[in-house]
Order: sequence, then structure tokens, then C-alpha cells
Amino acid sequence: MASTPQRRPGGRTARTRAAVHAAVRELLAAGGAEPSVREVAELSGVHEVTIYRRWGSIEALLLDVATAQLVEEWPFPDTGDLRADLLAWAGSVAEQLRRPEGFAFFHAVANAMSPASGTVSAELREQAEASMRSRAAQIQRALDREAANGGHPPTVDMVFDLVLAPLYLRAMWNYEPETHVEVFVDRALRAAQPVSD
Amino acid sequence: MASTPQRRPGGRTARTRAAVHAAVRELLAAGGAEPSVREVAELSGVHEVTIYRRWGSIEALLLDVATAQLVEEWPFPDTGDLRADLLAWAGSVAEQLRRPEGFAFFHAVANAMSPASGTVSAELREQAEASMRSRAAQIQRALDREAANGGHPPTVDMVFDLVLAPLYLRAMWNYEPETHVEVFVDRALRAAQPVSD
Repeated sequence: MASTPQRRPGGRTARTRAAVHAAVRELLAAGGAEPSVREVAELSGVHEVTIYRRWGSIEALLLDVATAQLVEEWPFPDTGDLRADLLAWAGSVAEQLRRPEGFAFFHAVANAMSPASGTVSAELREQAEASMRSRAAQIQRALDREAANGGHPPTVDMVFDLVLAPLYLRAMWNYEPETHVEVFVDRALRAAQPVSD
Repeated sequence: MASTPQRRPGGRTARTRAAVHAAVRELLAAGGAEPSVREVAELSGVHEVTIYRRWGSIEALLLDVATAQLVEEWPFPDTGDLRADLLAWAGSVAEQLRRPEGFAFFHAVANAMSPASGTVSAELREQAEASMRSRAAQIQRALDREAANGGHPPTVDMVFDLVLAPLYLRAMWNYEPETHVEVFVDRALRAAQPVSD
């Protein structure tokens, strides 16, 4: 067991992170209330004190898992067909939101960025904002290509307002479980078309 | 001090509820982290045990305050001018979301209705859903009047998807603090117009 005190990527720190993240995902997938640090510690085999030292709170840990998931596992598709890419992306968001762990991830980011949140460090909040910017930049590249090809793509804000926002609200308020991905995507695509009148 | 054991509207139960609600609003208005039952008890003068017995958890209490606020204090305006009514309503939602306690109220409802929430009773969840239906019915009446007058009003779903959802997402993700109430309302009004092509 050659362990060194300094943090090295791929070393003990990375293994700890992977074990803790896997435990969080497993607990969220099981549904129920928000997991506690104690439950994460028991499932991961990582000591509770270590988790608190590294993440500070369960909210901060959930945010870390959420942003990792967002950036690593749900890239914006990039096939050159903007409508198809938006449909695939929105469909995967809708599917994630239907599952307890996907919803919990969105919720963790929302909690972290909420003005009322006092439990997330400035560092983690910056991480959440960086993952948002990275996602926005991915979408921007697809929109830029469409414009370069002579199309009239929506802006990133339109994609968020017209596609992501209603998917999220419907999942959150639970007021209509089935989602209308195609309607939302086509609204975003139409919003950018030159108006005739 | 003539106190009777049974619950009477306007009696001790109502006074307890009013004191506890006022304390929650004051704590939320002050910002910071979600208030604890202990803080609510201290500020309201109502015993912690009484609060737990009546509401069960801080999440359930926040939800109760949020739905009361929604129904009692933010009625949908009804002047007969649909665009003006939507602008006034959306403006007040946007303003509420900019304030910590307004955001916290929306968040409390979201938490209660989240599939991952295990801390809110079926009774309170039903109360949240009833307040949503009541709000939807208020908006529906305004839309019906517009249709009766020969207009082409959007559906309630369109109002939620195109106006409420982006206001909420922008407040939540904090990705653009200024809101675009007029753009959102006009999108909703346009979405229902007959398409020319």
C-alpha cells in the first residue's frame, strides 16, 4: 500500500472520488429522499470524515456528481443536422428528468446556484457555472455551423428558454408527465426564422 | 386563557399557523440557507414539537407557506386585456423569483413535487397540486374570455411552457439575471395564432 500524502490525478484521490461518485449515483437511482453523507460513506467505503473534508456538505457532493455527469456523459450531439441534434439532446434530457437520479442532478445544480443556498462553496459554484458555460459552448458550435451553412439557427438562450426550460418545469411540477420534445424543438427553430409580416 | 382541545378555524390553530407562517417568511426574506424548524420555533414562539406534530418536516412547512402565498397573495390579474394581464403576472413572478423568499417558495413546491422527495406527506403534496390547479384555472378563465371575444389565446400549457418555465429556469440557473418578460409573453401569444404557411 504505497500511499503518498500529495494528491495525484489517477491516484488515491481519483479512486476516492470515483468510489464516492458511484455510491451517490447508486443511491439516487434507488429513489427516495436525498442521500446522507453517512449513507454515501457506508456504500462507498470512504470514511465520512474524508467526504466532509473534501466536499464539505451533501449538497456540494451532489453538485460535483451532477456537473461531472453533465459534462462527461451527456455531450451535445453534433451530426451536422441541427434539428436532429436538438431532438436527440432534448430527448435525452427528458429521459433523464423522468428518472429520479437525473432529476436529482438537475436539482443539485439548481440548489447550488440558488440565491438562498448557503451550503455550497464558491469553488463548487464556479464549477457548476463552468459546466453550464461548457454546455452552452457545445450548443453554440452547432448553431454557428447551421448559420455558416445559410440557416437561421436560434440562439443558445432560445434553446434554453424554449426547450430546456419547459422540459424542466414539467418534470419539476409534475403537472404533465409526458413531454413534447418535438413541439419544443420546433418552437425554438421557428423562433429564429425571419418573420413574414 | 380559554383554550379548547379541538381545532377551530380562527382559534388557536389558526393563530399558530399565522405565527409560524410569518416566521418562515421573515427567515426566508433574510436570505441564507433554508431555515430550520428550531429557528422557526424561536422566532414564532411556537414550540418545536408543535411544529413537527403539525407539519412533520421543514420541507412540508415551506410547502404549506408557499402554496398559501401562491393562492392568497398572487392572484392572476383579470382586467380583460389578456396581454396586459400576462405581462403583469409574469412581471410579478419575475420579481418574486429575484427575491430570496420568492425563489425559496418556488423551490419548496418543486422539492415537494419532485419524484425524489420522501419528506412530504401525501396530504401536503395534494395541497401543492391543488394550488397548481387553482392557478391554472385562474389563467384558463382569462384565456376563455379572450377566445369568447374572438381572439386566439394560447393554452395554459403554452403559458407555462413559454412564460413561466424560462423565468424559472433563468432564476434558478442564474445564467442571465435580467429577464425578458415581454419577449416571453409575446411568444406565448404568437404561439396560438393561426400559422400563415
